[in-house]
Amino acid sequence: MASIPLLLMGCGGVGRQLLHHVISCRPLHSQQGVRLRVVGVCDSKSMVAIPDVLTSEFRDDFLLQLCEIKSNGSSFLDLTKTGECQVYSGEEIGRKVIDVATALSSSSGLALIDCSASSETIGLLSQVINLDGCVVLANKKPLTSPLEYYDKLVSQPRRLRHESTVGAGLPVIATINRMLSSGDPISRIIGSLSGTLGYVMSEVEGGRPFSEVVTSAKKLGFTEPDPRDDLGGMDVARKALILARLLGHRIELDSIKVESLYPEKMGPANIPLDEFLANGLPLLDEAIQKRIESAASNGNVLRYVCLIEESRCEVGLQEVSKDSALGRLQGSDNVVEIYSRCYSKQPLVIQGAGAGNDTTAVGVLADILDIQDMFLHSPSAA
Amino acid sequence: MASIPLLLMGCGGVGRQLLHHVISCRPLHSQQGVRLRVVGVCDSKSMVAIPDVLTSEFRDDFLLQLCEIKSNGSSFLDLTKTGECQVYSGEEIGRKVIDVATALSSSSGLALIDCSASSETIGLLSQVINLDGCVVLANKKPLTSPLEYYDKLVSQPRRLRHESTVGAGLPVIATINRMLSSGDPISRIIGSLSGTLGYVMSEVEGGRPFSEVVTSAKKLGFTEPDPRDDLGGMDVARKALILARLLGHRIELDSIKVESLYPEKMGPANIPLDEFLANGLPLLDEAIQKRIESAASNGNVLRYVCLIEESRCEVGLQEVSKDSALGRLQGSDNVVEIYSRCYSKQPLVIQGAGAGNDTTAVGVLADILDIQDMFLHSPSAA
Repeated sequence: MASIPLLLMGCGGVGRQLLHHVISCRPLHSQQGVRLRVVGVCDSKSMVAIPDVLTSEFRDDFLLQLCEIKSNGSSFLDLTKTGECQVYSGEEIGRKVIDVATALSSSSGLALIDCSASSETIGLLSQVINLDGCVVLANKKPLTSPLEYYDKLVSQPRRLRHESTVGAGLPVIATINRMLSSGDPISRIIGSLSGTLGYVMSEVEGGRPFSEVVTSAKKLGFTEPDPRDDLGGMDVARKALILARLLGHRIELDSIKVESLYPEKMGPANIPLDEFLANGLPLLDEAIQKRIESAASNGNVLRYVCLIEESRCEVGLQEVSKDSALGRLQGSDNVVEIYSRCYSKQPLVIQGAGAGNDTTAVGVLADILDIQDMFLHSPSAA
Repeated sequence: MASIPLLLMGCGGVGRQLLHHVISCRPLHSQQGVRLRVVGVCDSKSMVAIPDVLTSEFRDDFLLQLCEIKSNGSSFLDLTKTGECQVYSGEEIGRKVIDVATALSSSSGLALIDCSASSETIGLLSQVINLDGCVVLANKKPLTSPLEYYDKLVSQPRRLRHESTVGAGLPVIATINRMLSSGDPISRIIGSLSGTLGYVMSEVEGGRPFSEVVTSAKKLGFTEPDPRDDLGGMDVARKALILARLLGHRIELDSIKVESLYPEKMGPANIPLDEFLANGLPLLDEAIQKRIESAASNGNVLRYVCLIEESRCEVGLQEVSKDSALGRLQGSDNVVEIYSRCYSKQPLVIQGAGAGNDTTAVGVLADILDIQDMFLHSPSAA
């Protein structure tokens, strides 16, 4: 029986979904000989922890209560009086996480799960790795931090999993790691890693004006509240950086060539959202239409992609063959084409939904199950 | 440092390619803190083993010599006199494999790699699992044996890996296992798992007669020496059974509905190959052409697929939407569409080359690297 002590950071949509999945998978995991033992949960301002992290764990009904507190927009700090758990806040949180990791380091080690969107967690994550713990990330920020910090985080690659940082639960990272570890060197990755931009580019291809597609995508809830957060490409750039670094590129986020689909003068620093939607966006239609027509005249289609090959790592619009998996993409699916020695003429293709709390949480949970063998020899295992 | 003692069964194209990859990946694996230590190699009639399996291993130049012996069609039995290794034959082989697994069971355990095509290995494989060893398969036969034997083999699922039994190195099994372990129940798998039949069906779609496509595929080396071995569908049925059992179907190989693309009266038991190619095949053209036209009139295309859903597990021709990943398939790539809770409207799609010694061996090697955490606590680890 492998017993994995979990400490969850981030109790937003993905974190709460993860807790629900952990609970609903109990019978399944019991069959598989694994016990996921939640010993602590943090949000951005507070942390609840079980008093004895070596042997006890939160009851499932208490975990559901924590989810409800966060769904209601309340705070863990209100729990102080219940006595069910210890509650920490502010600078105590980091110290307590390290205390827990230290206490567990002589037995199984801690699995620290980062489902936050914070750039502040990387120090803690690296310390937990140093304390023979494991780290599972849905949070992209730690992997896109400066190389100086990144290198510390990835110093023990088997102890770090982050499938859900690229393409949510799609097995992109697992596949790349399998290929790299078995000596099938990857020469090129090209992919559509934004469901929003994938949807926009396949819709405009059918003749609808860019501004109309973006506006309706926003109404359908397919975009961030300010669609410029999608159109600027920085989210795709973070994913591209994660993939490029996995392939060994020694680069920083700001060295990636990122094409924004709106000019800087229409940026949030210069005009408000309403004005962008009403007066800015329509000005972009003609240029996009011309590029689509130019691509079509070459027998190609236009996609917003990340492209990594040799020393290149770029994010932006590219013409791709309409007969490729990328070119045939419709709707909001993600798709990744991977070229290597074994997949040289035709790429290995992975395609499917690349967003959503459920899918992302499933990817995190699969990562947790994947590290179970490191927890087999724990003295606290039943 | 994880040190993994390997014993390889099967020294055909895949087995030899695996040994070459193990050798060429030494610097990479050393960086990753893993040492693959080959302690024995078997072919169908003989076995060479290192005298001290606990601490020593075959030198790389000796492994290359073994590969050369097999490439030349010679036998390991000629090695007896060199004194570099122990050589066993006949019934000694099974006993020696168990001796090795027993000797290693108190330390790291053995990793037994089955790259043979034998249906006789399953007993040994199950015994090695019982001796706390791990098993990695490229050989499909053990997984398609009667449930009575299958159940013993899969009794400890973490100790058994078999990515290369379906779609060669494509991450089909790894992905399904990730989905199953994280509570994303799979409702449907449909795939084209024969490169040969994928090629044939996409070519006949373009209007070429079936008999012409099969004949030219044979000339191009895309088929087995007797193409009826492909056209009969049994190889696809084995893959379908492996996937169905992974999803929990309690079925046997002979309970799968398999559609053969030639009638029994044209089978190897009834007419010789030459006559089949010259006079049998052309008689099949019209019926296939009619089915293609009928599919086209529904806006579909015809594919030779395996289909697994609920209690169904079937292999044969199916109409699929021409806009699906399966329908768009061209050439000899494999493609698998997986539907689950997270991928309910649009499937998770995995596509790429699904055959070839290199790709298959890479899949086996990735499986070996994937079990490395079970070898971390070995006393013989440096």
